[in-house]
Amino acid sequence: MMKRAVVLCSGGVDSATAMAIVRAEGYEVYALSFDYGQRHSVELEAARRVAESLGAARHLILKIDLRAFGGSALTEDQIAVPKREALEPQAPPQAPPHPGSPVSPVGPPAPGHSIPITYVPARNTIFLSFALAWAETLGASDIFIGVNAIDYSGYPDCRPEYIEAFQRMANLATKAGVTGANPIAIRAPLIHLTKGEIIRRGLALGVDYSLTHSCYDPAPNGFPCGHCDSCLLRAKGFHDAGLPGA
Amino acid sequence: MMKRAVVLCSGGVDSATAMAIVRAEGYEVYALSFDYGQRHSVELEAARRVAESLGAARHLILKIDLRAFGGSALTEDQIAVPKREALEPQAPPQAPPHPGSPVSPVGPPAPGHSIPITYVPARNTIFLSFALAWAETLGASDIFIGVNAIDYSGYPDCRPEYIEAFQRMANLATKAGVTGANPIAIRAPLIHLTKGEIIRRGLALGVDYSLTHSCYDPAPNGFPCGHCDSCLLRAKGFHDAGLPGA
Repeated sequence: MMKRAVVLCSGGVDSATAMAIVRAEGYEVYALSFDYGQRHSVELEAARRVAESLGAARHLILKIDLRAFGGSALTEDQIAVPKREALEPQAPPQAPPHPGSPVSPVGPPAPGHSIPITYVPARNTIFLSFALAWAETLGASDIFIGVNAIDYSGYPDCRPEYIEAFQRMANLATKAGVTGANPIAIRAPLIHLTKGEIIRRGLALGVDYSLTHSCYDPAPNGFPCGHCDSCLLRAKGFHDAGLPGA
Repeated sequence: MMKRAVVLCSGGVDSATAMAIVRAEGYEVYALSFDYGQRHSVELEAARRVAESLGAARHLILKIDLRAFGGSALTEDQIAVPKREALEPQAPPQAPPHPGSPVSPVGPPAPGHSIPITYVPARNTIFLSFALAWAETLGASDIFIGVNAIDYSGYPDCRPEYIEAFQRMANLATKAGVTGANPIAIRAPLIHLTKGEIIRRGLALGVDYSLTHSCYDPAPNGFPCGHCDSCLLRAKGFHDAGLPGA
C-alpha cells in the first residue's frame, strides 16, 4: 500500500505547493478543505481545482461554523479586511523566537499590530484536529500544512514551535500514544521559505498557480481585490520568483 | 467582569459535574456542545437541560461531521456498540503512565482491547480546538473538560499528559503565545476521580443527574440500553455513590 498523507488544502499558493511536494515524495494524497464561513466560495472552488489537478486520491470538504465565534475579518462581516497599496519593507531575517516570548512579526503586519485582524482564532488548530481524525482512520502517517514562518503575517499558529507542540499533543491524543506504534508527523515543508521560494519550488514541481486563489476579500465575481495582505504577498511572491505578471 | 470559562458539555454525568464545579468556582459559564453525528439526539437534549439548569450564560451547539471519517461505533452505523452484562472487576489503582509508554487500561475495557471501538478518533482534540477558538474570542481564561483517567475506558485523549500537551499547544497557537499575556488553562477537574467520587461531588454541588444522559446506544425513544460500557459505568457510579437505584 502507498503511504498516505492528509494535506490541508485552502486553494491558495502555499497549500498547492505543499500538495505538489507531498505527491513528489510518493504519498497518496488525501486533501482536506473546510467550508468555514469564508467570505467567498471562490476559495473552495480553487481548492477543488488544485486537489484534482494534483491527483488527490480523495478531496473532502467539511462544513464547520467558525462564524459562530467571529473575532476575525475573515469570519465576521462587521470587521473589514484591511487594504493598502503595498507591503511594508521586508524586515531582515530573524532567529526563531522562543516559545512564550514576544514575537516580532516580519513583513506584512502594519506597525503596532503584532497579530492582524485577519487572524482567525484557533483556525489552524481546528483544521489540524480534523486532519488528525482523518489520518487516524485512514492510517496516514503524515499530515501536511502549508504554513510558513517568514511571510506569516504575524499569525501565532504558523510558527515552528506551534507545529512541534501540535505534533506532540497529536501523538498523545490518538492510538499512537497508547500503542507507541505508527506515530503521526505534522509536516510544514514551507515553514522556512519565502513566498518567492515557495513559488519557485512549486513551478519546478509543475504546479499551475492559475488554479489557485489568495484574496481575503474577493469581489462578488470572485476577482481578487489586489490590496489585502494576501493579494500583496502573492504579487510580491510572483515578482520575487521572476514572474511579475502572474 | 466575571471571569469566563468555556465548558464542554455532552449532557452526561461527567460534564454536568464539571460545569457545577466551574460555577462553584465563580466563573461565568459558556457551555459548548457538538452535534457530531451521534447515534441519538437525546444526548443533545440532555446537554441543553444541563446547561440551562446550571445557569450557563450561553450554550452553543456546533454541528460538525465526524461521520465523514467514521472509525468508531459512535459515528459509524456499521460498527455495533459492544454490550455486556457487567463491567470487568476494577483493576487496582496504578501510577500515572509516562508519555509515550504503553498504557494499561483500568476498569471497563475487555481483555485484549486496549482502546475500545467506542473511541472516536481525535474527538476530544476537535472539541477542545473549537473551545479554544471560543475562549479566545470571549477572553475566557479557562477551558474545562470532564474527562477522567480512572474510568476512562482506555481512551488516549482522557489522560493527564494529553491534557497538558494540549494546553502547551493551545498557548502557542493563540494570541497568548505571541503576547505572553492571558495564557489559557485546560482544566480537567475530574481526571483523578472515580465515577462514584464524581457523582458524590456533583450531588454536593446540587447537580440533578436525572437531567443527564449516558448511553452510547439508546432506543428510538431515547431510553438507555443498560448494557453498553457507558450505561454500566453510570450504574456502577451511582451504586458506589450510595444511590444504587439512580
